[in-house]
Amino acid sequence: MAANAVLQIPVTRVTDGASEELNDAIAIEEPLEIRLEYGPAAERKVQNISVTMRTPGNDAELAAGFLFTEGIIKNASDIQQVTHCFIACAENRENVIQVSLAESITPHLQNTERNFYTTSSCGVCGKGSINAIRTVSHYNAELTDDNAINTEALTALPDILRQHQKVFADTGGLHASALLNPAGELLIVREDVGRHNALDKLIGAAINQNMLPLNKAVLLLSGRASFELVQKAAMAGINIIAAVGAPSSLAVQLAQEFNITLAGFLRGQRFNIYTAPQRILIPSYENPDQK
Amino acid sequence: MAANAVLQIPVTRVTDGASEELNDAIAIEEPLEIRLEYGPAAERKVQNISVTMRTPGNDAELAAGFLFTEGIIKNASDIQQVTHCFIACAENRENVIQVSLAESITPHLQNTERNFYTTSSCGVCGKGSINAIRTVSHYNAELTDDNAINTEALTALPDILRQHQKVFADTGGLHASALLNPAGELLIVREDVGRHNALDKLIGAAINQNMLPLNKAVLLLSGRASFELVQKAAMAGINIIAAVGAPSSLAVQLAQEFNITLAGFLRGQRFNIYTAPQRILIPSYENPDQK
Repeated sequence: MAANAVLQIPVTRVTDGASEELNDAIAIEEPLEIRLEYGPAAERKVQNISVTMRTPGNDAELAAGFLFTEGIIKNASDIQQVTHCFIACAENRENVIQVSLAESITPHLQNTERNFYTTSSCGVCGKGSINAIRTVSHYNAELTDDNAINTEALTALPDILRQHQKVFADTGGLHASALLNPAGELLIVREDVGRHNALDKLIGAAINQNMLPLNKAVLLLSGRASFELVQKAAMAGINIIAAVGAPSSLAVQLAQEFNITLAGFLRGQRFNIYTAPQRILIPSYENPDQK
Repeated sequence: MAANAVLQIPVTRVTDGASEELNDAIAIEEPLEIRLEYGPAAERKVQNISVTMRTPGNDAELAAGFLFTEGIIKNASDIQQVTHCFIACAENRENVIQVSLAESITPHLQNTERNFYTTSSCGVCGKGSINAIRTVSHYNAELTDDNAINTEALTALPDILRQHQKVFADTGGLHASALLNPAGELLIVREDVGRHNALDKLIGAAINQNMLPLNKAVLLLSGRASFELVQKAAMAGINIIAAVGAPSSLAVQLAQEFNITLAGFLRGQRFNIYTAPQRILIPSYENPDQK
Protein backbone atom coordinates (compact mmCIF):
# COMPACT_ATOMS: atom_id res chain seq x y z
CA MET A 1 0.00 0.00 0.00
CA ALA A 2 1.90 2.99 -1.24
CA ALA A 3 1.53 6.26 0.64
CA ASN A 4 0.88 8.04 -2.65
CA ALA A 5 -2.36 6.19 -3.41
CA VAL A 6 -4.49 8.86 -1.75
CA LEU A 7 -4.64 12.63 -2.06
CA GLN A 8 -6.27 15.10 0.32
CA ILE A 9 -8.06 17.90 -1.53
CA PRO A 10 -10.39 20.73 -0.53
CA VAL A 11 -14.04 20.07 -1.30
CA THR A 12 -17.34 21.83 -0.71
CA ARG A 13 -19.66 19.40 1.04
CA VAL A 14 -23.36 20.15 0.73
CA THR A 15 -25.77 18.55 3.21
CA ASP A 16 -29.47 19.39 3.15
CA GLY A 17 -28.70 22.55 1.21
CA ALA A 18 -26.05 23.81 3.65
CA SER A 19 -22.42 23.89 2.57
CA GLU A 20 -19.11 23.55 4.40
CA GLU A 21 -15.50 23.60 3.22
CA LEU A 22 -13.32 20.65 4.25
CA ASN A 23 -10.57 18.32 3.06
CA ASP A 24 -11.45 14.91 1.70
CA ALA A 25 -9.41 11.97 0.44
CA ILE A 26 -9.57 10.90 -3.18
CA ALA A 27 -7.87 7.99 -4.93
CA ILE A 28 -4.90 8.93 -7.09
CA GLU A 29 -5.19 8.01 -10.77
CA GLU A 30 -2.13 8.38 -13.01
CA PRO A 31 -1.15 6.81 -16.33
CA LEU A 32 1.49 4.05 -16.35
CA GLU A 33 3.29 3.19 -19.55
CA ILE A 34 4.67 -0.36 -19.64
CA ARG A 35 7.73 -0.83 -21.84
CA LEU A 36 9.33 -4.15 -22.70
CA GLU A 37 13.07 -4.59 -23.33
CA TYR A 38 14.01 -7.91 -24.94
CA GLY A 39 16.25 -9.71 -27.41
CA PRO A 40 19.87 -10.88 -27.52
CA ALA A 41 22.56 -8.56 -26.16
CA ALA A 42 23.68 -7.37 -29.59
CA GLU A 43 20.20 -6.23 -30.63
CA ARG A 44 18.09 -5.34 -27.61
CA LYS A 45 14.79 -3.72 -28.43
CA VAL A 46 12.49 -1.51 -26.36
CA GLN A 47 8.79 -1.52 -27.21
CA ASN A 48 5.81 0.27 -25.67
CA ILE A 49 3.28 -2.37 -24.71
CA SER A 50 0.46 -0.61 -22.91
CA VAL A 51 -0.69 2.51 -21.14
CA THR A 52 -3.07 1.97 -18.25
CA MET A 53 -4.64 4.42 -15.82
CA ARG A 54 -3.61 3.16 -12.40
CA THR A 55 -3.11 4.11 -8.77
CA PRO A 56 0.65 4.54 -8.18
CA GLY A 57 2.29 1.81 -6.12
CA ASN A 58 3.26 -1.81 -6.81
CA ASP A 59 4.06 -0.79 -10.38
CA ALA A 60 6.59 -3.59 -10.88
CA GLU A 61 3.95 -6.12 -9.82
CA LEU A 62 1.42 -4.51 -12.12
CA ALA A 63 3.81 -4.75 -15.07
CA ALA A 64 4.73 -8.37 -14.34
CA GLY A 65 1.12 -9.37 -13.75
CA PHE A 66 -0.04 -7.63 -16.92
CA LEU A 67 2.64 -9.27 -19.09
CA PHE A 68 1.79 -12.66 -17.61
CA THR A 69 -2.00 -12.45 -17.78
CA GLU A 70 -1.78 -11.20 -21.38
CA GLY A 71 0.32 -14.25 -22.24
CA ILE A 72 3.36 -12.17 -23.27
CA ILE A 73 5.63 -13.90 -20.73
CA LYS A 74 5.25 -17.34 -19.18
CA ASN A 75 7.31 -17.31 -16.00
CA ALA A 76 8.76 -15.02 -13.37
CA SER A 77 12.21 -16.15 -14.51
CA ASP A 78 11.59 -14.56 -17.93
CA ILE A 79 12.06 -11.19 -16.23
CA GLN A 80 15.61 -9.96 -15.64
CA GLN A 81 14.72 -6.69 -14.00
CA VAL A 82 11.94 -4.12 -13.69
CA THR A 83 12.83 -0.44 -13.33
CA HIS A 84 11.07 2.86 -13.54
CA CYS A 85 12.15 4.65 -16.67
CA PHE A 86 15.57 6.20 -16.88
CA ILE A 87 15.93 6.84 -20.62
CA ALA A 88 14.20 9.78 -22.29
CA CYS A 89 12.17 10.39 -19.16
CA ALA A 90 13.37 13.57 -17.56
CA GLU A 91 9.90 14.13 -16.13
CA ASN A 92 7.34 11.78 -14.69
CA ARG A 93 9.69 8.81 -14.71
CA GLU A 94 7.50 7.26 -12.04
CA ASN A 95 4.83 6.84 -14.71
CA VAL A 96 6.96 4.76 -17.07
CA ILE A 97 8.11 1.27 -16.12
CA GLN A 98 10.44 -0.91 -18.15
CA VAL A 99 10.48 -4.68 -17.91
CA SER A 100 13.72 -6.22 -19.19
CA LEU A 101 13.50 -9.86 -20.21
CA ALA A 102 16.33 -12.38 -20.04
CA GLU A 103 18.24 -12.49 -23.34
CA SER A 104 17.04 -16.00 -24.16
CA ILE A 105 13.35 -15.10 -23.87
CA THR A 106 11.18 -14.23 -26.88
CA PRO A 107 8.01 -12.44 -25.76
CA HIS A 108 4.70 -13.53 -27.31
CA LEU A 109 3.86 -10.12 -28.65
CA GLN A 110 1.24 -11.29 -31.12
CA ASN A 111 -0.99 -11.63 -28.08
CA THR A 112 -1.02 -7.88 -27.60
CA GLU A 113 -2.17 -6.98 -31.06
CA ARG A 114 -5.87 -7.46 -30.60
CA ASN A 115 -6.04 -8.85 -27.08
CA PHE A 116 -7.88 -12.09 -26.56
CA TYR A 117 -11.15 -10.75 -27.80
CA THR A 118 -10.83 -11.47 -31.47
CA THR A 119 -9.99 -14.36 -33.72
CA SER A 120 -9.33 -14.26 -37.42
CA SER A 121 -11.98 -16.88 -38.09
CA CYS A 122 -15.11 -15.22 -36.82
CA GLY A 123 -14.28 -11.59 -36.36
CA VAL A 124 -15.30 -11.20 -32.76
CA CYS A 125 -17.12 -13.82 -30.79
CA GLY A 126 -17.27 -14.91 -27.21
CA LYS A 127 -16.58 -18.54 -28.00
CA GLY A 128 -13.57 -17.61 -30.11
CA SER A 129 -12.25 -15.42 -27.33
CA ILE A 130 -12.55 -18.28 -24.89
CA ASN A 131 -10.69 -20.67 -27.19
CA ALA A 132 -7.95 -18.10 -27.65
CA ILE A 133 -7.48 -17.97 -23.89
CA ARG A 134 -7.39 -21.74 -23.65
CA THR A 135 -4.39 -21.90 -25.99
CA VAL A 136 -2.28 -19.45 -24.01
CA SER A 137 -3.26 -20.38 -20.45
CA HIS A 138 -0.62 -22.55 -18.84
CA TYR A 139 -2.61 -23.86 -15.94
CA ASN A 140 -5.73 -25.37 -17.49
CA ALA A 141 -4.79 -28.81 -16.27
CA GLU A 142 -4.34 -27.48 -12.75
CA LEU A 143 -8.00 -26.56 -12.37
CA THR A 144 -8.79 -29.70 -10.42
CA ASP A 145 -11.50 -30.07 -7.81
CA ASP A 146 -9.31 -30.64 -4.74
CA ASN A 147 -9.81 -27.07 -3.58
CA ALA A 148 -12.90 -26.04 -1.66
CA ILE A 149 -14.27 -23.45 0.74
CA ASN A 150 -17.25 -23.74 3.06
CA THR A 151 -20.04 -21.19 3.16
CA GLU A 152 -19.05 -19.73 6.52
CA ALA A 153 -15.52 -19.01 5.39
CA LEU A 154 -16.82 -17.59 2.10
CA THR A 155 -19.30 -15.18 3.64
CA ALA A 156 -16.62 -13.97 6.06
CA LEU A 157 -14.28 -12.88 3.24
CA PRO A 158 -15.68 -9.38 2.56
CA ASP A 159 -15.25 -8.39 6.22
CA ILE A 160 -11.66 -9.64 6.19
CA LEU A 161 -11.02 -7.57 3.07
CA ARG A 162 -12.64 -4.48 4.56
CA GLN A 163 -10.39 -4.68 7.62
CA HIS A 164 -7.34 -4.57 5.37
CA GLN A 165 -8.81 -1.91 3.12
CA LYS A 166 -9.57 0.59 5.84
CA VAL A 167 -6.81 3.03 4.89
CA PHE A 168 -8.53 3.60 1.57
CA ALA A 169 -12.11 3.08 2.61
CA ASP A 170 -12.47 6.84 2.89
CA THR A 171 -11.88 7.49 -0.77
CA GLY A 172 -14.61 5.14 -1.95
CA GLY A 173 -12.67 5.08 -5.18
CA LEU A 174 -10.51 1.96 -5.09
CA HIS A 175 -11.18 -1.57 -6.28
CA ALA A 176 -9.54 -4.42 -4.41
CA SER A 177 -8.46 -7.94 -5.31
CA ALA A 178 -7.57 -10.28 -2.47
CA LEU A 179 -6.08 -13.76 -2.40
CA LEU A 180 -6.99 -15.88 0.62
CA ASN A 181 -6.63 -19.50 1.57
CA PRO A 182 -9.82 -21.55 2.06
CA ALA A 183 -9.56 -20.99 5.83
CA GLY A 184 -10.01 -17.29 5.16
CA GLU A 185 -6.46 -16.18 5.86
CA LEU A 186 -5.40 -13.24 3.74
CA LEU A 187 -2.39 -13.94 1.53
CA ILE A 188 -2.22 -10.88 -0.74
CA VAL A 189 -4.40 -7.79 -1.21
CA ARG A 190 -3.95 -5.09 -3.82
CA GLU A 191 -5.99 -1.98 -4.60
CA ASP A 192 -6.31 0.29 -7.61
CA VAL A 193 -8.68 2.69 -9.35
CA GLY A 194 -8.85 0.06 -12.11
CA ARG A 195 -10.18 -3.36 -11.15
CA HIS A 196 -8.01 -5.07 -13.78
CA ASN A 197 -4.94 -3.33 -12.37
CA ALA A 198 -5.73 -4.49 -8.83
CA LEU A 199 -5.81 -8.09 -10.10
CA ASP A 200 -2.67 -7.68 -12.23
CA LYS A 201 -0.84 -6.34 -9.16
CA LEU A 202 -2.04 -9.30 -7.11
CA ILE A 203 -0.98 -11.84 -9.73
CA GLY A 204 2.32 -10.01 -10.20
CA ALA A 205 2.97 -10.27 -6.45
CA ALA A 206 2.14 -13.99 -6.56
CA ILE A 207 4.50 -14.47 -9.52
CA ASN A 208 7.31 -12.75 -7.62
CA GLN A 209 6.71 -15.12 -4.69
CA ASN A 210 6.65 -18.20 -6.97
CA MET A 211 3.11 -19.01 -5.84
CA LEU A 212 1.64 -19.99 -9.23
CA PRO A 213 -0.54 -21.87 -10.02
CA LEU A 214 -2.94 -20.39 -7.45
CA ASN A 215 -5.13 -23.51 -7.36
CA LYS A 216 -5.27 -23.81 -3.58
CA ALA A 217 -6.54 -20.29 -2.96
CA VAL A 218 -9.64 -18.15 -3.32
CA LEU A 219 -9.77 -14.86 -5.23
CA LEU A 220 -12.06 -12.19 -3.78
CA LEU A 221 -13.09 -9.24 -5.96
CA SER A 222 -14.46 -6.11 -4.23
CA GLY A 223 -16.78 -5.29 -7.13
CA ARG A 224 -18.15 -6.89 -10.27
CA ALA A 225 -16.75 -9.91 -12.08
CA SER A 226 -16.12 -9.15 -15.76
CA PHE A 227 -14.79 -11.40 -18.52
CA GLU A 228 -11.39 -9.72 -18.25
CA LEU A 229 -11.04 -10.52 -14.55
CA VAL A 230 -12.03 -14.17 -14.96
CA GLN A 231 -9.60 -14.40 -17.89
CA LYS A 232 -6.73 -13.07 -15.77
CA ALA A 233 -7.64 -15.41 -12.92
CA ALA A 234 -7.70 -18.39 -15.32
CA MET A 235 -4.22 -17.49 -16.54
CA ALA A 236 -2.94 -17.75 -12.95
CA GLY A 237 -4.66 -21.10 -12.29
CA ILE A 238 -7.24 -19.66 -9.88
CA ASN A 239 -10.25 -22.00 -9.56
CA ILE A 240 -12.46 -20.22 -6.99
CA ILE A 241 -13.57 -16.61 -7.59
CA ALA A 242 -15.90 -14.79 -5.21
CA ALA A 243 -17.19 -11.33 -6.14
CA VAL A 244 -19.01 -8.81 -3.95
CA GLY A 245 -20.75 -7.55 -7.08
CA ALA A 246 -22.49 -9.02 -10.10
CA PRO A 247 -20.90 -11.15 -12.82
CA SER A 248 -21.37 -10.50 -16.54
CA SER A 249 -22.65 -13.11 -18.98
CA LEU A 250 -19.25 -13.70 -20.58
CA ALA A 251 -17.59 -13.98 -17.18
CA VAL A 252 -20.03 -16.78 -16.33
CA GLN A 253 -19.49 -18.44 -19.71
CA LEU A 254 -15.71 -18.37 -19.35
CA ALA A 255 -15.86 -19.70 -15.78
CA GLN A 256 -18.15 -22.50 -16.99
CA GLU A 257 -15.82 -23.50 -19.84
CA PHE A 258 -12.80 -23.49 -17.55
CA ASN A 259 -14.50 -25.27 -14.62
CA ILE A 260 -13.82 -22.27 -12.39
CA THR A 261 -16.13 -21.77 -9.40
CA LEU A 262 -17.73 -18.32 -9.66
CA ALA A 263 -19.79 -16.85 -6.80
CA GLY A 264 -21.30 -13.37 -6.86
CA PHE A 265 -23.34 -10.91 -4.81
CA LEU A 266 -21.44 -11.94 -1.68
CA ARG A 267 -23.33 -9.86 0.89
CA GLY A 268 -23.92 -10.76 4.51
CA GLN A 269 -24.90 -14.42 4.77
CA ARG A 270 -26.03 -14.61 1.17
CA PHE A 271 -24.43 -15.23 -2.22
CA ASN A 272 -25.11 -16.76 -5.65
CA ILE A 273 -23.13 -19.60 -7.21
CA TYR A 274 -22.99 -19.36 -10.99
CA THR A 275 -20.60 -22.15 -11.98
CA ALA A 276 -18.78 -25.23 -10.62
CA PRO A 277 -20.61 -25.35 -7.26
CA GLN A 278 -18.68 -28.47 -6.19
CA ARG A 279 -15.92 -26.33 -4.63
CA ILE A 280 -18.32 -24.59 -2.23
CA LEU A 281 -19.28 -26.78 0.70
CA ILE A 282 -22.88 -26.05 1.68
CA PRO A 283 -24.05 -27.79 4.90
CA SER A 284 -27.59 -28.34 3.62
CA TYR A 285 -26.49 -29.61 0.22
CA GLU A 286 -27.43 -33.21 -0.55
CA ASN A 287 -23.95 -34.00 -1.76
CA PRO A 288 -22.91 -37.65 -1.24
CA ASP A 289 -19.22 -36.68 -1.29
CA GLN A 290 -19.67 -34.65 1.86
CA LYS A 291 -21.46 -37.28 3.88
CA MET B 1 -32.67 -0.32 -24.12
CA ALA B 2 -32.17 -3.46 -26.16
CA ALA B 3 -33.96 -6.59 -25.09
CA ASN B 4 -30.72 -8.53 -25.36
CA ALA B 5 -28.97 -6.63 -22.58
CA VAL B 6 -29.98 -9.15 -19.92
CA LEU B 7 -29.76 -12.92 -19.72
CA GLN B 8 -31.63 -15.22 -17.34
CA ILE B 9 -29.43 -18.04 -16.07
CA PRO B 10 -29.80 -20.76 -13.42
CA VAL B 11 -27.97 -19.99 -10.18
CA THR B 12 -27.60 -21.61 -6.77
CA ARG B 13 -28.53 -19.02 -4.16
CA VAL B 14 -27.14 -19.67 -0.69
CA THR B 15 -28.76 -17.87 2.26
CA ASP B 16 -27.63 -18.58 5.83
CA GLY B 17 -26.11 -21.87 4.68
CA ALA B 18 -29.27 -23.08 2.91
CA SER B 19 -29.31 -23.35 -0.86
CA GLU B 20 -32.01 -23.03 -3.51
CA GLU B 21 -31.96 -23.26 -7.30
CA LEU B 22 -33.48 -20.33 -9.19
CA ASN B 23 -33.09 -18.17 -12.27
CA ASP B 24 -31.43 -14.81 -12.00
CA ALA B 25 -30.73 -11.98 -14.44
CA ILE B 26 -27.18 -11.08 -15.41
CA ALA B 27 -25.93 -8.32 -17.66
CA ILE B 28 -24.76 -9.47 -21.09
CA GLU B 29 -21.14 -8.70 -21.93
CA GLU B 30 -19.91 -9.30 -25.49
CA PRO B 31 -16.99 -7.91 -27.48
CA LEU B 32 -17.66 -5.26 -30.12
CA GLU B 33 -15.11 -4.61 -32.83
CA ILE B 34 -15.31 -1.12 -34.32
CA ARG B 35 -14.10 -0.86 -37.92
CA LEU B 36 -13.64 2.35 -39.86
CA GLU B 37 -14.12 2.62 -43.64
CA TYR B 38 -12.75 5.80 -45.16
CA GLY B 39 -11.00 7.40 -48.10
CA PRO B 40 -11.92 8.45 -51.64
CA ALA B 41 -14.10 6.10 -53.70
CA ALA B 42 -11.20 4.72 -55.73
CA GLU B 43 -9.22 3.65 -52.67
CA ARG B 44 -11.52 2.99 -49.73
CA LYS B 45 -9.79 1.44 -46.72
CA VAL B 46 -11.18 -0.58 -43.84
CA GLN B 47 -9.27 -0.47 -40.55
CA ASN B 48 -9.91 -2.07 -37.17
CA ILE B 49 -9.99 0.71 -34.59
CA SER B 50 -10.92 -0.87 -31.29
CA VAL B 51 -12.39 -3.87 -29.53
CA THR B 52 -14.42 -3.11 -26.42
CA MET B 53 -16.37 -5.39 -24.09
CA ARG B 54 -19.88 -4.00 -24.14
CA THR B 55 -23.54 -4.79 -23.50
CA PRO B 56 -25.23 -5.33 -26.89
CA GLY B 57 -27.60 -2.57 -28.00
CA ASN B 58 -27.11 0.98 -29.28
CA ASP B 59 -23.96 -0.23 -31.04
CA ALA B 60 -24.13 2.44 -33.72
CA GLU B 61 -24.28 5.12 -31.03
CA LEU B 62 -21.39 3.48 -29.21
CA ALA B 63 -19.27 3.50 -32.36
CA ALA B 64 -20.13 7.13 -33.20
CA GLY B 65 -19.58 8.26 -29.62
CA PHE B 66 -16.26 6.43 -29.37
CA LEU B 67 -14.93 7.87 -32.64
CA PHE B 68 -15.99 11.35 -31.56
CA THR B 69 -14.70 11.27 -27.97
CA GLU B 70 -11.37 9.84 -29.18
CA GLY B 71 -11.08 12.76 -31.59
CA ILE B 72 -11.06 10.54 -34.69
CA ILE B 73 -14.08 12.30 -36.20
CA LYS B 74 -15.34 15.82 -35.55
CA ASN B 75 -19.00 15.88 -36.58
CA ALA B 76 -22.01 13.67 -37.07
CA SER B 77 -21.91 14.61 -40.74
CA ASP B 78 -18.51 12.89 -41.08
CA ILE B 79 -20.40 9.58 -40.88
CA GLN B 80 -22.03 8.26 -44.04
CA GLN B 81 -23.46 5.08 -42.57
CA VAL B 82 -23.02 2.64 -39.70
CA THR B 83 -23.75 -1.05 -40.24
CA HIS B 84 -23.13 -4.29 -38.49
CA CYS B 85 -20.52 -6.24 -40.37
CA PHE B 86 -21.40 -7.99 -43.60
CA ILE B 87 -17.97 -8.78 -45.01
CA ALA B 88 -15.94 -11.74 -43.70
CA CYS B 89 -18.35 -12.10 -40.82
CA ALA B 90 -20.37 -15.25 -41.34
CA GLU B 91 -20.71 -15.62 -37.59
CA ASN B 92 -21.23 -13.08 -34.84
CA ARG B 93 -21.82 -10.22 -37.24
CA GLU B 94 -23.67 -8.47 -34.46
CA ASN B 95 -20.31 -8.09 -32.68
CA VAL B 96 -18.63 -6.19 -35.51
CA ILE B 97 -19.75 -2.70 -36.50
CA GLN B 98 -18.43 -0.71 -39.42
CA VAL B 99 -18.53 3.07 -39.56
CA SER B 100 -18.22 4.41 -43.10
CA LEU B 101 -17.07 8.01 -43.38
CA ALA B 102 -17.97 10.41 -46.14
CA GLU B 103 -15.39 10.32 -48.93
CA SER B 104 -14.14 13.82 -48.20
CA ILE B 105 -13.34 13.06 -44.54
CA THR B 106 -9.87 12.14 -43.33
CA PRO B 107 -10.05 10.52 -39.88
CA HIS B 108 -7.56 11.66 -37.23
CA LEU B 109 -6.14 8.21 -36.66
CA GLN B 110 -2.96 9.37 -34.95
CA ASN B 111 -5.18 9.95 -31.94
CA THR B 112 -5.77 6.21 -31.57
CA GLU B 113 -2.14 5.22 -31.44
CA ARG B 114 -1.45 5.87 -27.82
CA ASN B 115 -4.72 7.39 -26.70
CA PHE B 116 -4.60 10.72 -24.95
CA TYR B 117 -2.49 9.47 -22.13
CA THR B 118 0.94 10.03 -23.56
CA THR B 119 2.93 12.76 -25.12
CA SER B 120 6.23 12.49 -26.89
CA SER B 121 7.79 15.15 -24.68
CA CYS B 122 7.50 13.66 -21.23
CA GLY B 123 6.67 10.02 -21.67
CA VAL B 124 3.52 9.82 -19.63
CA CYS B 125 2.25 12.61 -17.47
CA GLY B 126 -1.07 13.86 -16.27
CA LYS B 127 -0.40 17.42 -17.34
CA GLY B 128 0.68 16.30 -20.80
CA SER B 129 -2.44 14.20 -21.14
CA ILE B 130 -4.59 17.16 -20.26
CA ASN B 131 -2.86 19.37 -22.82
CA ALA B 132 -3.30 16.68 -25.46
CA ILE B 133 -7.03 16.70 -24.80
CA ARG B 134 -7.17 20.46 -25.01
CA THR B 135 -5.82 20.42 -28.56
CA VAL B 136 -8.42 17.98 -29.89
CA SER B 137 -11.49 19.10 -27.94
CA HIS B 138 -13.74 21.23 -30.10
CA TYR B 139 -15.88 22.76 -27.39
CA ASN B 140 -13.41 24.32 -24.94
CA ALA B 141 -14.75 27.77 -25.65
CA GLU B 142 -18.28 26.57 -24.97
CA LEU B 143 -17.60 25.81 -21.33
CA THR B 144 -19.12 29.05 -20.14
CA ASP B 145 -20.80 29.63 -16.82
CA ASP B 146 -24.35 30.29 -18.03
CA ASN B 147 -25.46 26.80 -17.02
CA ALA B 148 -26.42 25.97 -13.45
CA ILE B 149 -28.38 23.53 -11.33
CA ASN B 150 -29.71 24.04 -7.82
CA THR B 151 -29.06 21.59 -5.00
CA GLU B 152 -32.62 20.27 -4.89
CA ALA B 153 -32.61 19.36 -8.56
CA LEU B 154 -29.14 17.86 -8.22
CA THR B 155 -29.95 15.60 -5.28
CA ALA B 156 -33.09 14.40 -7.08
CA LEU B 157 -31.13 13.11 -10.09
CA PRO B 158 -30.17 9.64 -8.79
CA ASP B 159 -33.83 8.78 -8.08
CA ILE B 160 -34.83 9.91 -11.56
CA LEU B 161 -32.11 7.69 -13.01
CA ARG B 162 -33.16 4.72 -10.87
CA GLN B 163 -36.73 4.98 -12.14
CA HIS B 164 -35.50 4.67 -15.71
CA GLN B 165 -33.00 1.95 -14.86
CA LYS B 166 -35.44 -0.39 -13.20
CA VAL B 167 -35.44 -2.94 -16.03
CA PHE B 168 -31.78 -3.59 -15.35
CA ALA B 169 -31.66 -2.91 -11.64
CA ASP B 170 -31.97 -6.65 -11.03
CA THR B 171 -28.67 -7.50 -12.63
CA GLY B 172 -26.65 -5.14 -10.47
CA GLY B 173 -24.16 -5.26 -13.29
CA LEU B 174 -24.79 -2.23 -15.45
CA HIS B 175 -23.35 1.26 -15.33
CA ALA B 176 -25.51 4.15 -16.47
CA SER B 177 -24.85 7.58 -17.93
CA ALA B 178 -27.75 10.01 -18.05
CA LEU B 179 -28.14 13.43 -19.60
CA LEU B 180 -30.68 15.73 -17.96
CA ASN B 181 -31.57 19.37 -18.19
CA PRO B 182 -31.04 21.56 -15.09
CA ALA B 183 -34.73 21.15 -14.21
CA GLY B 184 -34.07 17.44 -13.79
CA GLU B 185 -35.83 16.26 -16.95
CA LEU B 186 -34.22 13.17 -18.43
CA LEU B 187 -32.99 13.67 -21.99
CA ILE B 188 -30.96 10.51 -22.68
CA VAL B 189 -29.98 7.49 -20.59
CA ARG B 190 -27.71 4.64 -21.67
CA GLU B 191 -26.46 1.57 -19.80
CA ASP B 192 -23.56 -0.81 -20.28
CA VAL B 193 -21.27 -3.21 -18.41
CA GLY B 194 -18.52 -0.71 -19.19
CA ARG B 195 -18.93 2.79 -17.80
CA HIS B 196 -16.99 4.31 -20.72
CA ASN B 197 -19.32 2.53 -23.17
CA ALA B 198 -22.42 3.87 -21.42
CA LEU B 199 -21.06 7.41 -21.88
CA ASP B 200 -19.96 6.78 -25.48
CA LYS B 201 -23.50 5.52 -26.26
CA LEU B 202 -25.00 8.63 -24.65
CA ILE B 203 -22.71 11.00 -26.56
CA GLY B 204 -23.30 9.02 -29.77
CA ALA B 205 -27.06 9.44 -29.29
CA ALA B 206 -26.58 13.18 -28.70
CA ILE B 207 -24.45 13.46 -31.86
CA ASN B 208 -27.16 11.71 -33.88
CA GLN B 209 -29.67 14.24 -32.56
CA ASN B 210 -27.38 17.19 -33.32
CA MET B 211 -27.39 18.19 -29.65
CA LEU B 212 -23.70 19.05 -29.29
CA PRO B 213 -22.23 20.98 -27.53
CA LEU B 214 -24.02 19.71 -24.41
CA ASN B 215 -23.35 22.89 -22.44
CA LYS B 216 -26.91 23.38 -21.21
CA ALA B 217 -27.25 19.94 -19.66
CA VAL B 218 -26.06 17.90 -16.69
CA LEU B 219 -24.30 14.54 -16.98
CA LEU B 220 -25.11 12.01 -14.25
CA LEU B 221 -22.81 9.00 -13.76
CA SER B 222 -24.16 6.01 -11.79
CA GLY B 223 -20.73 5.14 -10.40
CA ARG B 224 -17.28 6.64 -10.10
CA ALA B 225 -15.86 9.52 -12.11
CA SER B 226 -12.58 8.57 -13.75
CA PHE B 227 -10.24 10.63 -15.93
CA GLU B 228 -11.56 8.85 -19.02
CA LEU B 229 -15.19 9.81 -18.30
CA VAL B 230 -14.37 13.47 -17.66
CA GLN B 231 -12.28 13.48 -20.85
CA LYS B 232 -15.20 12.14 -22.90
CA ALA B 233 -17.58 14.64 -21.29
CA ALA B 234 -15.18 17.50 -22.08
CA MET B 235 -15.07 16.44 -25.74
CA ALA B 236 -18.86 16.81 -25.89
CA GLY B 237 -18.87 20.24 -24.24
CA ILE B 238 -20.45 19.03 -20.98
CA ASN B 239 -19.79 21.49 -18.13
CA ILE B 240 -21.66 19.91 -15.18
CA ILE B 241 -20.88 16.31 -14.13
CA ALA B 242 -22.52 14.68 -11.11
CA ALA B 243 -21.37 11.22 -10.00
CA VAL B 244 -23.01 8.89 -7.50
CA GLY B 245 -19.54 7.52 -6.70
CA ALA B 246 -16.08 8.93 -6.01
CA PRO B 247 -13.88 10.85 -8.42
CA SER B 248 -10.22 10.06 -9.03
CA SER B 249 -7.43 12.60 -8.65
CA LEU B 250 -6.89 12.98 -12.39
CA ALA B 251 -10.63 13.36 -12.98
CA VAL B 252 -10.62 16.29 -10.53
CA GLN B 253 -7.48 17.76 -12.12
CA LEU B 254 -8.95 17.58 -15.62
CA ALA B 255 -12.27 19.07 -14.48
CA GLN B 256 -10.34 21.91 -12.80
CA GLU B 257 -8.27 22.67 -15.90
CA PHE B 258 -11.36 22.68 -18.12
CA ASN B 259 -13.59 24.66 -15.72
CA ILE B 260 -16.04 21.73 -15.57
CA THR B 261 -18.21 21.46 -12.46
CA LEU B 262 -17.61 18.05 -10.85
CA ALA B 263 -19.77 16.79 -7.97
CA GLY B 264 -19.40 13.36 -6.39
CA PHE B 265 -20.84 11.06 -3.71
CA LEU B 266 -24.34 12.19 -4.66
CA ARG B 267 -26.31 10.30 -2.00
CA GLY B 268 -29.56 11.38 -0.41
CA GLN B 269 -29.40 15.08 0.43
CA ARG B 270 -25.62 15.15 0.43
CA PHE B 271 -22.83 15.57 -2.12
CA ASN B 272 -19.33 16.95 -2.54
CA ILE B 273 -18.32 19.63 -5.03
CA TYR B 274 -14.76 19.22 -6.27
CA THR B 275 -14.43 21.88 -8.96
CA ALA B 276 -16.16 24.94 -10.45
CA PRO B 277 -18.81 25.29 -7.72
CA GLN B 278 -20.29 28.38 -9.39
CA ARG B 279 -22.67 26.22 -11.46
CA ILE B 280 -24.31 24.68 -8.39
CA LEU B 281 -26.76 27.04 -6.71
CA ILE B 282 -26.66 26.48 -2.96
CA PRO B 283 -29.33 28.41 -0.99
CA SER B 284 -27.04 29.04 1.99
CA TYR B 285 -24.07 30.13 -0.12
CA GLU B 286 -22.92 33.71 0.38
CA ASN B 287 -22.80 34.33 -3.34
CA PRO B 288 -23.41 37.95 -4.34
CA ASP B 289 -24.48 36.88 -7.84
CA GLN B 290 -27.47 35.07 -6.40
CA LYS B 291 -28.72 37.88 -4.20
